[in-house]
Amino acid sequence: MVEELGALMQRMGREALAASRVLAVASASDKNVALLAAAEALRQRRAQILEANGLDMQEAQAKQLGRALLDRLLLDDRRIEAMSSSIEQIAGLADPVGTLAAEWQRPNGLRIQRVRVPLGVVGIIFESRPNVTADAGALCLKSGNVAILRGGSESQHSSRAIHECLCVGLGRAGLPLACIQLVPTVDRAAVGFMLSGMSEYLDVLVPRGGKSLIARVRDEARVPVIGHLEGNCHVYVDREADLDMACAIVLNAKLRRTGVCGAAETLLVDRACAPTHLPVLVQALLRAGCEVRGDDDVQRTDSAVRPASEDDWYREYLDAIIAVRVVDGVEGAIAHIERYGSEHTESIVTQNASTAERFLARVDSAIVLHNASTQFADGGEFGMGAEIGISTDRLHARGPVGVEQLTTYKYVVRGEGQIRPP
Amino acid sequence: MVEELGALMQRMGREALAASRVLAVASASDKNVALLAAAEALRQRRAQILEANGLDMQEAQAKQLGRALLDRLLLDDRRIEAMSSSIEQIAGLADPVGTLAAEWQRPNGLRIQRVRVPLGVVGIIFESRPNVTADAGALCLKSGNVAILRGGSESQHSSRAIHECLCVGLGRAGLPLACIQLVPTVDRAAVGFMLSGMSEYLDVLVPRGGKSLIARVRDEARVPVIGHLEGNCHVYVDREADLDMACAIVLNAKLRRTGVCGAAETLLVDRACAPTHLPVLVQALLRAGCEVRGDDDVQRTDSAVRPASEDDWYREYLDAIIAVRVVDGVEGAIAHIERYGSEHTESIVTQNASTAERFLARVDSAIVLHNASTQFADGGEFGMGAEIGISTDRLHARGPVGVEQLTTYKYVVRGEGQIRPP
Repeated sequence: MVEELGALMQRMGREALAASRVLAVASASDKNVALLAAAEALRQRRAQILEANGLDMQEAQAKQLGRALLDRLLLDDRRIEAMSSSIEQIAGLADPVGTLAAEWQRPNGLRIQRVRVPLGVVGIIFESRPNVTADAGALCLKSGNVAILRGGSESQHSSRAIHECLCVGLGRAGLPLACIQLVPTVDRAAVGFMLSGMSEYLDVLVPRGGKSLIARVRDEARVPVIGHLEGNCHVYVDREADLDMACAIVLNAKLRRTGVCGAAETLLVDRACAPTHLPVLVQALLRAGCEVRGDDDVQRTDSAVRPASEDDWYREYLDAIIAVRVVDGVEGAIAHIERYGSEHTESIVTQNASTAERFLARVDSAIVLHNASTQFADGGEFGMGAEIGISTDRLHARGPVGVEQLTTYKYVVRGEGQIRPP
Repeated sequence: MVEELGALMQRMGREALAASRVLAVASASDKNVALLAAAEALRQRRAQILEANGLDMQEAQAKQLGRALLDRLLLDDRRIEAMSSSIEQIAGLADPVGTLAAEWQRPNGLRIQRVRVPLGVVGIIFESRPNVTADAGALCLKSGNVAILRGGSESQHSSRAIHECLCVGLGRAGLPLACIQLVPTVDRAAVGFMLSGMSEYLDVLVPRGGKSLIARVRDEARVPVIGHLEGNCHVYVDREADLDMACAIVLNAKLRRTGVCGAAETLLVDRACAPTHLPVLVQALLRAGCEVRGDDDVQRTDSAVRPASEDDWYREYLDAIIAVRVVDGVEGAIAHIERYGSEHTESIVTQNASTAERFLARVDSAIVLHNASTQFADGGEFGMGAEIGISTDRLHARGPVGVEQLTTYKYVVRGEGQIRPP
């Protein structure tokens, strides 16, 4: 059985490599024809997609999976329309392939261009959300990359129905169907092949899922990975913060959506303004229904505050819970973030420009903000269009991973017979 | 013993991480003071360096190591001066840290900057050439990265003497000595720790060495790698090539220096011009002392041509040997390179602009050239200053890896209280 799966995965890899050579030089308009036709197919096949999703939901309920997972799994008219319009937006983005990242001439007359090219074949391993099939497939196609998608077993029927729509689009544009492939089995060993058995075909892996998936990828991958780890994001309220602005930013950063990686998980308050600012901030959070876990100073502000343990400073709650700590000014905030942070997104609230610049320079996270909510950590909010995630890696792509970050470059050098002197 | 080594490597990692936070925000002038003082120290301590190198040479001769290795190991006045002036050149490069890679404003007023920052802590594993200690240490320092250097046991005395000069420079600038660390043991287990036991401290590994080192790194590394694999580089002489230009480029690409990764290893000649061009090219190579291994057509041009086996098309000779094959036009050349190439550097010689553009677009190597020698595959020749190598990876850095490629970026976002709408 494992051997059969191995043969299947090898065939998918070979077909992906062959397709990647066609797709790498496909025109922007061919790719957009495929995307728009896929978006149309999603709308036209709504009934079939909902039916497939119904099967997934039945199986998930039979397995008594949790409410959060059931919600991620569920598709309805609105979510199908969102997938469809997301693909249309991706079609509307500028094509990154072939664009010049730089261009210069050497004294010997050589003209050098750095030109964007696709990464090649991208493997995406995801869990329950079936819309990742549409998003990731469309982002890869737009950026000229072949996608090998491996979704969670819970969403298998939905993902297949969505994948068929993407294939309709590829067919309409005359592009190889192997440009977007969905691993057609729920056998978990398929993930193992993607991690370590297909390195000659896969150029990069993008894992999208919980900690256990990420840990497995880190341990086993023999292919470069663009990782999306935790977002243990911080808001630091400085002594020179405007209190109204601080309240608005903290509430938005924590509670606008608690399940996104850019949600704030820890609030740091400057000791110098704690007497005035801390009670107001804590009350605002409690009133908004947020559980507050704090250090001794914070606990004294309200009996509803629960004690924070050392572990709380590391936690990515992804829930209406926040850890709150009093720190000694901006240096204390920087030291706390250095120790406990995940280098995702951090914000300082202050009216003092030089304090802000110190924080922005010294905090080495993918995104650092001044007087703005951490929930802006999003490719769309950055104006990059859709994204495949927020990278917490340092190499290749950091922060939102959009179509440009799904490319690499090559150097094109034009001469008139230049040879290199001895 | 292994436990003691483990403790040593952990301490080096901890000190590197602490130093990286200082170095990341060090001024360009402090870094340049350190570099120029190190260059001066190399000149002043020439006698000690030559003495240390004498020890390495004695041990290498006693072990009867090969001539090529002895040559790589040997230092003399000229080579020490070259190291010194290379460091001065690195000091003269623009500081990449803090430069803006992009800047834009969003409709909601948020001002977004993409700012270059150092990668962090870079581990460099190299073999016999002691000058890598100086080059790699200086490149990392310039780009704000802490370096942990692990040289080969053959060059241990020389590397230590060179490293001391770098430390003199760091001391002069008041920078932590831990900014450039040399693993002080020849225990091979140290490499194992760098590959998989220090991932919390190392941000990236750069292996510089032969195939067995690279293979080990690929298998064992738990840290992102910037890889420098083979340069199986091709020159394709098209039917519309100028024959004189083709001869000059082929001779230069193959023979200017045979031991560099940008040296051509295979010559592809268009069948349409083989009757006129092939004999001239083969004669020129043979007369220049190059061994020629060819397919049947090539063998017929001269009895001195030896038969090429399938294996020859894959070979990186790094020697005065070239494989020569007749192919069916530019499509044949592209297909051959796709099958046998290593995505390093390939050149087309033709007077036909549209044939050239087809080759440049379709050959997906780090560097593709038109009417120029493959030996231009070099950071200096690209105008990037010194480089730590030529990357054949697709992610992060492709082609020459200079100071800019040793950085990543972060997003700095400045607002006036913006929160994200629901």
